[in-house]
Amino acid sequence: MANITKKVSWSSRADESGATGEGTPLLNGSEQPRHSRQDSLRGRPKEIPHNEKLLSLKYESLDYDNIENQLFLEEERRMSYMGFRCLEISRWVVCGLIGFLTGLIACFIDIAVEELAGFKYQVVKENIEKFTEVGGLSISLILWAVLNSAIVMLGAIIVAFFEPIAAGSGIPQIKCYLNGVKIPRVVRLKTLVVKVCGVICSVVGGLAVGKEGPMIHSGAVVAAGVSQGRSTSLKRDFKIFEYFRRDTEKRDFVSAGAAAGVSAAFGAPVGGVLFSLEEGASFWNQMLTWRIFFASMISTFTLNFFLSIYHNKTGDLSSPGLINFGRFESDSVAYNLYEIPLFIAMGAIGGLLGALFNVLNYWLTIFRIRYVHRPCLQVMEAMLVAAVTATVSFTMIYFSNDCQPLGPDNTEDYPLQLFCADGEYNSMATAFFNTPERSVRSLFHNQPDTYNPLTLGLFTLTYFFLACWTYGLAVSAGVFIPSLLIGAAWGRLFGRLLAAITSSGSIWADPGKYALIGAAAQLGGIVRMTLSLTVIMVEATGNVTYGLPIMLVLMTAKIVGDYFVEGLYDIHIKLQSVPFLHWEAPATSHWLTAREVMSSPVTCLNRIEKVGTIVDTLSNTSTNHNGFPVVVQVTGSDEPAKLCGLILRSQLIVLLKHKVFVELARSRLTQRKLQLKDFRDAYPRFPPIQSIHVSQDERECMMDLTEFMNATPYTVPQETSLPRVFKLFRALGLRHLVVADDENRVVGLVTRKDLARYHLGKHGLEELQLAQT
Amino acid sequence: MANITKKVSWSSRADESGATGEGTPLLNGSEQPRHSRQDSLRGRPKEIPHNEKLLSLKYESLDYDNIENQLFLEEERRMSYMGFRCLEISRWVVCGLIGFLTGLIACFIDIAVEELAGFKYQVVKENIEKFTEVGGLSISLILWAVLNSAIVMLGAIIVAFFEPIAAGSGIPQIKCYLNGVKIPRVVRLKTLVVKVCGVICSVVGGLAVGKEGPMIHSGAVVAAGVSQGRSTSLKRDFKIFEYFRRDTEKRDFVSAGAAAGVSAAFGAPVGGVLFSLEEGASFWNQMLTWRIFFASMISTFTLNFFLSIYHNKTGDLSSPGLINFGRFESDSVAYNLYEIPLFIAMGAIGGLLGALFNVLNYWLTIFRIRYVHRPCLQVMEAMLVAAVTATVSFTMIYFSNDCQPLGPDNTEDYPLQLFCADGEYNSMATAFFNTPERSVRSLFHNQPDTYNPLTLGLFTLTYFFLACWTYGLAVSAGVFIPSLLIGAAWGRLFGRLLAAITSSGSIWADPGKYALIGAAAQLGGIVRMTLSLTVIMVEATGNVTYGLPIMLVLMTAKIVGDYFVEGLYDIHIKLQSVPFLHWEAPATSHWLTAREVMSSPVTCLNRIEKVGTIVDTLSNTSTNHNGFPVVVQVTGSDEPAKLCGLILRSQLIVLLKHKVFVELARSRLTQRKLQLKDFRDAYPRFPPIQSIHVSQDERECMMDLTEFMNATPYTVPQETSLPRVFKLFRALGLRHLVVADDENRVVGLVTRKDLARYHLGKHGLEELQLAQT
Repeated sequence: MANITKKVSWSSRADESGATGEGTPLLNGSEQPRHSRQDSLRGRPKEIPHNEKLLSLKYESLDYDNIENQLFLEEERRMSYMGFRCLEISRWVVCGLIGFLTGLIACFIDIAVEELAGFKYQVVKENIEKFTEVGGLSISLILWAVLNSAIVMLGAIIVAFFEPIAAGSGIPQIKCYLNGVKIPRVVRLKTLVVKVCGVICSVVGGLAVGKEGPMIHSGAVVAAGVSQGRSTSLKRDFKIFEYFRRDTEKRDFVSAGAAAGVSAAFGAPVGGVLFSLEEGASFWNQMLTWRIFFASMISTFTLNFFLSIYHNKTGDLSSPGLINFGRFESDSVAYNLYEIPLFIAMGAIGGLLGALFNVLNYWLTIFRIRYVHRPCLQVMEAMLVAAVTATVSFTMIYFSNDCQPLGPDNTEDYPLQLFCADGEYNSMATAFFNTPERSVRSLFHNQPDTYNPLTLGLFTLTYFFLACWTYGLAVSAGVFIPSLLIGAAWGRLFGRLLAAITSSGSIWADPGKYALIGAAAQLGGIVRMTLSLTVIMVEATGNVTYGLPIMLVLMTAKIVGDYFVEGLYDIHIKLQSVPFLHWEAPATSHWLTAREVMSSPVTCLNRIEKVGTIVDTLSNTSTNHNGFPVVVQVTGSDEPAKLCGLILRSQLIVLLKHKVFVELARSRLTQRKLQLKDFRDAYPRFPPIQSIHVSQDERECMMDLTEFMNATPYTVPQETSLPRVFKLFRALGLRHLVVADDENRVVGLVTRKDLARYHLGKHGLEELQLAQT
Repeated sequence: MANITKKVSWSSRADESGATGEGTPLLNGSEQPRHSRQDSLRGRPKEIPHNEKLLSLKYESLDYDNIENQLFLEEERRMSYMGFRCLEISRWVVCGLIGFLTGLIACFIDIAVEELAGFKYQVVKENIEKFTEVGGLSISLILWAVLNSAIVMLGAIIVAFFEPIAAGSGIPQIKCYLNGVKIPRVVRLKTLVVKVCGVICSVVGGLAVGKEGPMIHSGAVVAAGVSQGRSTSLKRDFKIFEYFRRDTEKRDFVSAGAAAGVSAAFGAPVGGVLFSLEEGASFWNQMLTWRIFFASMISTFTLNFFLSIYHNKTGDLSSPGLINFGRFESDSVAYNLYEIPLFIAMGAIGGLLGALFNVLNYWLTIFRIRYVHRPCLQVMEAMLVAAVTATVSFTMIYFSNDCQPLGPDNTEDYPLQLFCADGEYNSMATAFFNTPERSVRSLFHNQPDTYNPLTLGLFTLTYFFLACWTYGLAVSAGVFIPSLLIGAAWGRLFGRLLAAITSSGSIWADPGKYALIGAAAQLGGIVRMTLSLTVIMVEATGNVTYGLPIMLVLMTAKIVGDYFVEGLYDIHIKLQSVPFLHWEAPATSHWLTAREVMSSPVTCLNRIEKVGTIVDTLSNTSTNHNGFPVVVQVTGSDEPAKLCGLILRSQLIVLLKHKVFVELARSRLTQRKLQLKDFRDAYPRFPPIQSIHVSQDERECMMDLTEFMNATPYTVPQETSLPRVFKLFRALGLRHLVVADDENRVVGLVTRKDLARYHLGKHGLEELQLAQT
């Protein structure tokens, strides 16, 4: 098992730099390699394997374990108690900033969408009204379709050509990041800008998408940026928060950012915390959780405050996040024991429909990977979807004869009269001719007889397929709101049918309640979250009475859905062959031990090693590990070398760059010692080995790794069972785990990919193949 | 540091058994030792050291790490995928049962309290009404005081004489259990019975206590009982759930039970989950969290369902848990930006008052430990408090002239007219002459002018001292409700004063809002929980609008309070010298390494060891460890022995009991092999070594530990820093961590007590002394 030939993620770069360099790869100092790497990533969709039985080698891991080398320990020991207090305070400050900025971004997106969509609907409405009487509504249709396509084209172009990673909701990517997988460029400033502009275009362009998922991604990017106190993209270093420039701290802040994003999107601070924990934290730390909570809190607060100014109700902070389910009054929505089986049945329906959605989207994604991987094709597909969405909506509205009276307390923003009598409006238009958030709200709260069953049924059907087609387009957009909308529509239909069947008891009179349950069921069936989603729904509803039914519905939806297919996000993660670690090792993996799982043999370095050997090791394309055990040979003895530490590729790169050679240290006594700061400055974009000049003379020098290696890496014996290795790895967020024999000699190395390979398939334990792409 | 002379927790037992045994301790087979141990524990309060700088050695740890020996691995490997599925399903079933039973218990407590308290108040009310006109109210006072004292006496007797561990709220004990400390007899059936009866007596007896804290303890006991499928107290073994008979599984279920308890107490299922996680789980596992959530959900559901029957509203499930904050309507309680500083100020007041409460209670507890440690004294103190509470209440009511009109929509249960005009009632009586839950609710919801400021001020003052005196009595009672009540009273006062100062703007008109914030501030200032408490408060309020202010208030209260003194539960944990592990090692402990922290030398056993040696090791009173590293000597070599496993005291006991000797195995080939079942049957009350007969001949036999030891214990090198050791220990829930040198020889052993010793005091890092008591 350990003999699988592993191709190397670094090889492509090495090849390219070999082709473009001036001489030997080792002397190549141009910046070319980095550009070529970016180029190769830009066409990323091309590389997605079409097979979920593969595990990509291109993803690196994050290191959640502190590198406790001598430099680090010295720094920690030098630091006073007050120093630690200051660090703690700055962590809180950073979290506050993250929450504030995330709230601001949410506010910006919300206002931009409101204004632009309002403008668009106004234009189209006027046009429709003009042509309703005189005939020639086809012109209105064309206007609407062209407007939508143009806006969506803008959004698709920036995504497809400038930052493909900004496509979709970003939740799968953030899940992976929190799990410990480094997704290239997922937390960069450029990604954030493209994401924000992209999501505004998608929503204004009338696609069946929401702006909530992208908020989570945005929050994470903000967190990764703020916590580092600098921007590599803008080439600005504020010289603050330097202590936080390592994976451990950064990941904590990204958790906070994701939580702040959820919090801003749904007005659900507790839900945000639970989302971060459910997706990310394996080790629950109380202080960290409070900081995450603080960020979430500030984020909702900021959003509410600025939105209250925008809505001319300055200071009224009682309104929730981007999506507002509206106020459910407790009395009108009380439920009864005999309704619970109905709720569970709705959960099962949600699970089934969700599974159908996921299967359809899975096939569609496979198709896209195979045939629609060129940016211009992607843009065209997005435009097509926008035009079709507009056309379908228009057709539905046109042929609908569901007219509702326009009451005095009417809350419709853009009521379309169309062919209805004066004082009435077309109720199909309420569902289609609106931002999805408003449609959800009107499905929850409008008067019981607002929609007739046919309208609801047709709407569910069309929106289901439109949403399914839309998710996975090269636009920045979320799937939460479309799911809620589909669910609310069939839930309301369910409620109305119930009311029709039973006698007119008052308890059945409120289809809004069933719309809410249906929305929960559909969303749960698609994304399969339970705990955090329950809390998010409860917080967005603003009423805890519904806690229990929503829980039951989400659990049922998950159990039913899982029977057929995984959740939407997990499908997309699998399709990208990400080495994602689940919570526990597969149940039946006790017969596997570290011996079978580990990679072996491992390249080890001596504690005092020749520079040439190190350079060769790093340049060697068959060594794809990023950590190397350091061993020490007892002098004058033929005993085998013993493990004495672990050093990372990135550390070696920094050492080579600063030429920390034993010989040079002797000759240049005045030169300052290498400090932790040098490693932090290089983080996180360490240069590739090819960019470092090492002369032939220098190759003969020696390097002393004692000070820089982690002298106490975690080790396990060879006989350790896979679940035990897995638990250690997951609980501590490790990147490398050394396997040692009873003489403390290195026999192997376990990495994330070695563990993620094993998964429980339909036929028992299966092993994924490792692949280059 | 490792040279501290450690006295041994086992020594007292060994001494006593030596005194009562027939001959050598090794041949002593009587049950005497166990009884004497129980006796010594019964008088437990005597043993509490008066010094929080001590760390008791009497507490054992729980083992959250699976003992992966050959037997275990064989069983796991034999098990099919379906087997694991069945196990998973039975875990869900157990959690469902836990929730159901916890809900039932909550329901029983609630109904019993309602009925008995109703009866008592009715009797007293009639008596007072009889004597108001004719004079001679002192007779009423005496009746009231005697009634209360008698009821409280009953509760105090069962607690003080039968089960002292059932005293108090039980939350500190459950915190310790979830942290991994085995508190003797905390999860026994007898404790549950005493707890439930005790709490009914305390609440009915009119003490300043609540019934919510004990629910958490009750849930935990239910969980520990149900999950084991047997009751040792009742001597019944149902032969089910045998797989769950180990610390790992049991602790998971106890988490679920505690969550179910919170959920039933406050109608807060999500709050319950967060409570369990905040207090217990270091390793967050998604499936476990869902199961905990399920248990919480079922618990609230069961309680609601049965209470709805009791209240003749069968099937109406919208009512929350034991405490009901009543319905806060969203519109009347909206808050505004400029109120936030006020809320924060209230949080600070809560923090100050909470700190004062904790300091007073700390002194009182020290006093009690020194002078009130005999059960009869404890009962008398409880009776005294009951009588004083009644007297003070009566005096307050008597001298109050705060009369309020008795409206037609009056919701008072026992309105006392006293000296008020006809159609009016005494409003001080509403606060005192009522169960505390009702008083809280009326402070939140009664009309703005229900209480005058003087009433509120006096009530706050008296109730503060009464509650402070009451907590720590030998009665089963919680501190949540008294804290809420104090806070609600001064919060309402705060609101009324604000309304008086400012012009009569409508936003100030609702003192109920300030009562809620005050209640949160006071509770936060006393117990210092944040995340879970926020969610609990929000769920109990039934309205998420208040999420943000409650969070802010709780955080402020915690920050302010922590400046002076720890939380109430932590104070009591410290006073009991429990080796409690916090989330992280002290910040300034990087200069300590495993070498300084570990216990050394360690008693090691050979893989094939003489029975006599094992018996001597276990009987040796200077060996207080419960785990022994197993080493192997390379035959015919003078090399030092290498670590090859770890075996627990309890396992050795079982092996000795079953006489698993190499020689006997040869002679009795037909004898069945020792199985995991034998260890499970003995769990968790392993007999002491003195109860096992080992003849002189048997002492010469050999025992092969290979099959039974954990062959892959976690190890760390000696240079590992304390924070790193701590993290490993905490993340994996370890009990023993072997320290090995680079030859894989055992050099030391780190246990919970070695880590808990270091804490951050006022003068930097301090080291606690280990003590026998």
